[in-house]
Amino acid sequence: MDHGKLLRESFNGTKHQLSGHGRRNVSVLKEAFANVDGETSSDMYGKGEVIEAFERKMAQLLGKESTVFFPSGTMAQQIALRIWCDELGTKKVAYHPLAHLEIHEEDGLKELHGIETVLLADETRLVELADVVAMEDVSCLLLELPQREIGGQLPSFETLEAIASHCKARGIKLHLDGARLLEILPYYGKSASEVCELFDSVYLSFYKGIGGIAGAILAGSEGFTERSKVWKRRHGGDLISLYPYILSADHYYEKRKDRMASYYEDAKQLAERFNAVPGIRTMPNVPVSNMFHLHITGSKEEIATKLAELQRSTGIGVAGYLVEKNGYCSTELSLGDAYRELDGPAIDHLFTELDRLM
Amino acid sequence: MDHGKLLRESFNGTKHQLSGHGRRNVSVLKEAFANVDGETSSDMYGKGEVIEAFERKMAQLLGKESTVFFPSGTMAQQIALRIWCDELGTKKVAYHPLAHLEIHEEDGLKELHGIETVLLADETRLVELADVVAMEDVSCLLLELPQREIGGQLPSFETLEAIASHCKARGIKLHLDGARLLEILPYYGKSASEVCELFDSVYLSFYKGIGGIAGAILAGSEGFTERSKVWKRRHGGDLISLYPYILSADHYYEKRKDRMASYYEDAKQLAERFNAVPGIRTMPNVPVSNMFHLHITGSKEEIATKLAELQRSTGIGVAGYLVEKNGYCSTELSLGDAYRELDGPAIDHLFTELDRLM
Repeated sequence: MDHGKLLRESFNGTKHQLSGHGRRNVSVLKEAFANVDGETSSDMYGKGEVIEAFERKMAQLLGKESTVFFPSGTMAQQIALRIWCDELGTKKVAYHPLAHLEIHEEDGLKELHGIETVLLADETRLVELADVVAMEDVSCLLLELPQREIGGQLPSFETLEAIASHCKARGIKLHLDGARLLEILPYYGKSASEVCELFDSVYLSFYKGIGGIAGAILAGSEGFTERSKVWKRRHGGDLISLYPYILSADHYYEKRKDRMASYYEDAKQLAERFNAVPGIRTMPNVPVSNMFHLHITGSKEEIATKLAELQRSTGIGVAGYLVEKNGYCSTELSLGDAYRELDGPAIDHLFTELDRLM
Repeated sequence: MDHGKLLRESFNGTKHQLSGHGRRNVSVLKEAFANVDGETSSDMYGKGEVIEAFERKMAQLLGKESTVFFPSGTMAQQIALRIWCDELGTKKVAYHPLAHLEIHEEDGLKELHGIETVLLADETRLVELADVVAMEDVSCLLLELPQREIGGQLPSFETLEAIASHCKARGIKLHLDGARLLEILPYYGKSASEVCELFDSVYLSFYKGIGGIAGAILAGSEGFTERSKVWKRRHGGDLISLYPYILSADHYYEKRKDRMASYYEDAKQLAERFNAVPGIRTMPNVPVSNMFHLHITGSKEEIATKLAELQRSTGIGVAGYLVEKNGYCSTELSLGDAYRELDGPAIDHLFTELDRLM
């Protein structure tokens, strides 16, 4: 059996996991709908109380004039960038080389919208003010907070403010990839609207820290969101019914919105334990949200074998996959409800075993 | 109060409706999931048993090598046409002037894919073989069966075969907008795969006659569907979880697939009754599926007032909207489970009242 498969199967066989909120299965939907009245009317092509009430609630949270519910962030963000390109007349945007749009969307932004991209910083670090000052003119700069593919790093809030001021002065729109916006608020010690105030448009996801089924919100001015609805229809995202995602997003938002500080504390504590294991370090060293990456020294074959053994013997899932880098392998952890279900002795045992194996 | 609103509110206040399967509300989801095991794993970005099993089942039904589940038909069909344009090297497709892509999608096909359209026939009639023979070269011809916006009309099966042969000989791909494919099988007396055999690619919807929540299938060769998955991701339709739509599509497909002949018989019988009312005729005169349009002589104001009164006095919903045409108004009926819940005396009473009002 190949080592990737070995690792994945041992992970899938575990009863508990360090990361996430538990299995992604139909019970996630059942829990969300258990207390919803069957007589509740469906939304109809973006209209109706079920979608409009949630959009208003999210506008309030984010401190924006208006929001639109989308089936996916991929769709919402391409559309946001397209609107800003059309408004400013230049089909060019800037973002980090590991932005979701650049590496996970089959180049939809380029293929569907003909938008050119300018890559800032590099694959090892965050976008800084100096990168933004030096960049050529674009219609929009997209910042992803936290920068997921480098472990969930964050610039300081002062850097964010400086970048926002600079963009404003140059007439460049600033868009927030806030898939994990709620998860970063404890570190910044800010409200969602205080962060969003720096941005012209914002995207928020409902199946990351919030743990819903799928779906996203795009927020901005009334004029911006109205234009986004036209593009939502063009993309094929203006479904007759989005309520399975909307009502579950609302349920899990209410359930978890006040737990983000706990997830963040758990991440810091867990990262500290991993950093005490020889051959393992976390990125960032001290997490700034509920997420971090593990960097484990060794080949994929060697580490997969060890982790598979660990997962089988402890019943705790650490990693379902590894990405091989130069001399080490990487995997991602995002703390949620699952970690809180583990008791102290079980975690102690996991680290004793991990120490033994490494 | 304006007359459109008056009509809509009287319709929304009815207990029963002639059209559809009952209210589009959360109970549609609850029924579909009542017997689904909570431990059933979610699909993950287009993979996993829940989506793959349904795609295989639909491939079997449609007699195609492969299928892909999409959140919407808008997305599926634009992508089908894009693939054929790329394969044949000409960014031009042909369809009826009232095709869904032409009138309901904010020109997504043109705006996102840069595809030019050639309109065949006109707003009063079906595409015939002569239109296809005379048309300029295109990559793909899309046929919608039934042609919804003209009441759900169908060409003869011989015409379909002749169009398919002609396209094949000219090297033009033939795509089926089969949103209502199951609904036309009783009229043709054919299986789904016998109809689909004439087409290179097929789209089927799950919230028309089948009555699911949302979602669509795109079918074709393995190579075609693989390419469609890349575009699905570009469009933002490759959601982490589509199971709320897939499992409900499967539930209602199983529930209603064998009822299409009854819906068709009901449509013919009901159309006959409408045609006996002065000032009302149906289009088509004799339905060829579960659907038809009502053409009611008079102004929108006058008809809306009468229908609102009818709906209030009988508690039966006939129309929630009217489209004003030249000397008459039009509305659409699609027969489903709702009509079968009405008893004979209630329908007799409705027509007695309608006769009195008209």
